[in-house]
Amino acid sequence: MQSTIEPFPLTVGGILRYATGVHGDRTVTTATGQGGYRHATYREVGRDAARLANALRGLGITGDQRVGTFMWNNAEHLVAYLAIPSMGAVLHTLNIRLFPEQIEFVAYEAEDQVIIADLSVAPVLARVLRSLETVHTVIAVGEGDLGPLQESGKTVLRYDELLAEQSDEFDWPDVDENSAAAMCYTSGTTGHPKGVVYSHRSNYLHSMAVCSGNAMGLSFSDRALPIVPMFHANAWGMPYAALMAGADLVMPDRHMDAVSMVNLIETQQPTVAGAVPTIWNDVMNHLLDNPGHDISSLRLVACGGSAVPVSLMKTFEDKFGVPIRQAWGMTETSPIATVAWPAPGTPEDKQWELRGSQGRPLCGVEARIVDDEGNALPNDDESVGELEVRGPWITGSYYRNTDPSKFVGGWLRTGDVGRIDAQGYVTLTDRAKDVIKSGGEWISSVELENHLIAHPAVLDAAVVGVPDERWEERPLAAVVLKEGAEASPDQLREFLSDKVVRWWLPERWTFVTEIPRTSVGKYDKKAIRARHAEGDYQVHTIS
Amino acid sequence: MQSTIEPFPLTVGGILRYATGVHGDRTVTTATGQGGYRHATYREVGRDAARLANALRGLGITGDQRVGTFMWNNAEHLVAYLAIPSMGAVLHTLNIRLFPEQIEFVAYEAEDQVIIADLSVAPVLARVLRSLETVHTVIAVGEGDLGPLQESGKTVLRYDELLAEQSDEFDWPDVDENSAAAMCYTSGTTGHPKGVVYSHRSNYLHSMAVCSGNAMGLSFSDRALPIVPMFHANAWGMPYAALMAGADLVMPDRHMDAVSMVNLIETQQPTVAGAVPTIWNDVMNHLLDNPGHDISSLRLVACGGSAVPVSLMKTFEDKFGVPIRQAWGMTETSPIATVAWPAPGTPEDKQWELRGSQGRPLCGVEARIVDDEGNALPNDDESVGELEVRGPWITGSYYRNTDPSKFVGGWLRTGDVGRIDAQGYVTLTDRAKDVIKSGGEWISSVELENHLIAHPAVLDAAVVGVPDERWEERPLAAVVLKEGAEASPDQLREFLSDKVVRWWLPERWTFVTEIPRTSVGKYDKKAIRARHAEGDYQVHTIS
Repeated sequence: MQSTIEPFPLTVGGILRYATGVHGDRTVTTATGQGGYRHATYREVGRDAARLANALRGLGITGDQRVGTFMWNNAEHLVAYLAIPSMGAVLHTLNIRLFPEQIEFVAYEAEDQVIIADLSVAPVLARVLRSLETVHTVIAVGEGDLGPLQESGKTVLRYDELLAEQSDEFDWPDVDENSAAAMCYTSGTTGHPKGVVYSHRSNYLHSMAVCSGNAMGLSFSDRALPIVPMFHANAWGMPYAALMAGADLVMPDRHMDAVSMVNLIETQQPTVAGAVPTIWNDVMNHLLDNPGHDISSLRLVACGGSAVPVSLMKTFEDKFGVPIRQAWGMTETSPIATVAWPAPGTPEDKQWELRGSQGRPLCGVEARIVDDEGNALPNDDESVGELEVRGPWITGSYYRNTDPSKFVGGWLRTGDVGRIDAQGYVTLTDRAKDVIKSGGEWISSVELENHLIAHPAVLDAAVVGVPDERWEERPLAAVVLKEGAEASPDQLREFLSDKVVRWWLPERWTFVTEIPRTSVGKYDKKAIRARHAEGDYQVHTIS
Repeated sequence: MQSTIEPFPLTVGGILRYATGVHGDRTVTTATGQGGYRHATYREVGRDAARLANALRGLGITGDQRVGTFMWNNAEHLVAYLAIPSMGAVLHTLNIRLFPEQIEFVAYEAEDQVIIADLSVAPVLARVLRSLETVHTVIAVGEGDLGPLQESGKTVLRYDELLAEQSDEFDWPDVDENSAAAMCYTSGTTGHPKGVVYSHRSNYLHSMAVCSGNAMGLSFSDRALPIVPMFHANAWGMPYAALMAGADLVMPDRHMDAVSMVNLIETQQPTVAGAVPTIWNDVMNHLLDNPGHDISSLRLVACGGSAVPVSLMKTFEDKFGVPIRQAWGMTETSPIATVAWPAPGTPEDKQWELRGSQGRPLCGVEARIVDDEGNALPNDDESVGELEVRGPWITGSYYRNTDPSKFVGGWLRTGDVGRIDAQGYVTLTDRAKDVIKSGGEWISSVELENHLIAHPAVLDAAVVGVPDERWEERPLAAVVLKEGAEASPDQLREFLSDKVVRWWLPERWTFVTEIPRTSVGKYDKKAIRARHAEGDYQVHTIS
């Protein structure tokens, strides 16, 4: 028997049609710096999307050619998010924080034809533009000198001037929901970045999931603030989800320091925001140092990208009246896969434990823990192994099939190590490659780091495995102390002693001025291990 | 360029896997009458689903054969909702309130093989069972005498005994998301019922939409109470959506009187409920007559099926602290298509106007108004025409292509007449076939009815068009007065006079003891017109 319901396509163009048609009065607000803001309605965004599509066609963009963006979170980036996939082309969000050689690599592999770039980051782009062979044109957004970009020999056009010449109507094509809509590269610490190509369908379904009550529950009563960059895995899906919900969008552009953030929240009154812990940590410290501000318009803060300290969540809730909800995902998972929130009736201490976990899968996402041989382990909160995930918005390969070893039988091998409990809560204890194996047992570097960061004297801390004659590996703690604060290795070890099992306690400690980080701000543990191996660190050993 | 994300299938089996795996501790509670309740976890529901699937295979159910249900809202119906589609068969929810010849027709056309039936409604089924040619077996749920069913000559088995013999594991097959999952017949007032065949995909996407913030925003912090029957368009998607969200389910079974409802709400503390206005009207009257009850566990009540009086919504909000959110849809639309909620910043009087409308489309659903020639009219809140809708959970045909005239170019012609404003709010003023055309202009019978029902002496009222020599048609108001209450035609006309334009005011009035209704409780306007034509009504005419 045939279903009488045909598979109506799930496309970015459908989101565009809906947001501009039904929610045309809603607005996108972009910070312009020093407390200034500019506003556009979704109707205007839709017209600009048509203008941009016409302009790109005029520049020769056809079929599923790639158009790169090199931009902060702003109205123009939203226009690109809508126009490029809806015209059938592929949006490639270039990460402005990649190293120059990585930018060259990804633009070349993706075969970007045109790049739309904020002039505020033109110097970064200008450094590599000449060597981006496939790129023929740059569309420059905002005010500033075109000179540095023009030195590349590419055609450089001003966005405003280009769009002013175009019709605000475009004959949007019918697009197959399984065709490519957007692509984003992972920024691995080893090897080349790897490309994930999102389909219209995967973006659409991920957006629906973001709108669901278990994720952000976005509705048109919300004002959504994506602080997480739009070049990081679709800004966690917030732009498309907000359009789908008819929620207002508030965009920080490049103004992401704590003072700007607090001003933005107080004046623009967002209800839902998303950013990495570092941002919220800065906001917290600013608010604690400068009482009298009010960020309680936020009914929900999504936080992820790295483990969210429970102490941060507690401070936000107790002092500012703002709940932080931890979410976990990767570029490969669109990105939101799991969200950490306790079920009703959970005892209070257990609530914080669960909120400190990576959370439970949203419906659609399936998660499992496997052993070294790939056998699924029970969800007993004890069995430890690599996390594998699959689902409608999880990639099953990389572009051009680079690194096929990350995929097995339809599952994505996340490279994260952890456990799952009977209610599906995932607790990640390490990156597979960062796991510390001591005497045949695993020590979680992440857990040690989280405890260390909660020490009042500690600003930052990373723990890596280093060779040990007796135990094969033992943890080395690299600690950055707060300015003027003091703490000895003995004191820090003592501080940890009632928080983790005895044999996890590090003997090796080093005090550093900064933890090496990757281009996207994650601990670069490979670099830490290398520096330690080269004797760059002064290590205090507790015997 | 290929997307690297494969189209992971969206199936009922996926919902089953998720709800029992991640939310296995959540519960479905079923009322047993007189304040009694029984409980099952989702884990147990999942095991019973496997048992039922094994039992149905044992009874010869293969491929996409149809299995009917003839049941109230209870745990066993939920088991059938999960088991039948997940095993690849098709769930056919039979409407227990259809007329016997309609039941015969739909079971025959759908070729139901097995029917699962509550013994509490066995007498209704027994009346037609013998003539259901394709049905070979009835599985009887609950306690009671099998005799009446056995008289049909069919095999009759007890659900509990049958399931007790089965394995609680089933090798659920991979199912194409576009294959048939369930079917439901519309109960039109004219002609045979028409079948809608939902796909796995359409049910899944509709459930996601129900979980979104603009619909019910269901999360695992909720307890969902579907009062609307599971044989009415998937109980508005609440069962599948609750499973998808990991929300508890609370099921009234057949105990839907106001006393039972209030007891259920007070003891089981649901947070979200869905039912037609009649149910909430009964609950309201009961609570107003019996103060001291508390139904404020409900954070949201979804209401639809017929127009929701603003007076009902106001009383619920002011007296009980419970917001009612009007939704609109049809069996053909899975059913939720639009939801009535005002955008932030709407002035208060306008808020109630919008909440009294049918609301705005959820993302995915597209709505338009067309004139008699099928031309789309502007969303100006003035142009009146037939409402057409399309989208991922809207049927594009009827089973066996009955009545193809209802579909045009991918759009469903709803048979409803109304207008759309610039923000997408749909206001339906009539069924196309009930429209009153007076002197070339349309009069809304629905609007007149809503105003009349707000009169303190009026219990119920229907308005139909009747022939008029001068104006072609004029409205006739059929009114049921409250017991002991009095109101003259002149008083009622006066009451309407500041609410509608002068030429809408009915001259013809009749007082009746009851408004004729269809099998699903809607005004049977065809019958009213027929009775009037045959002179059954005493008509008072105001000249």
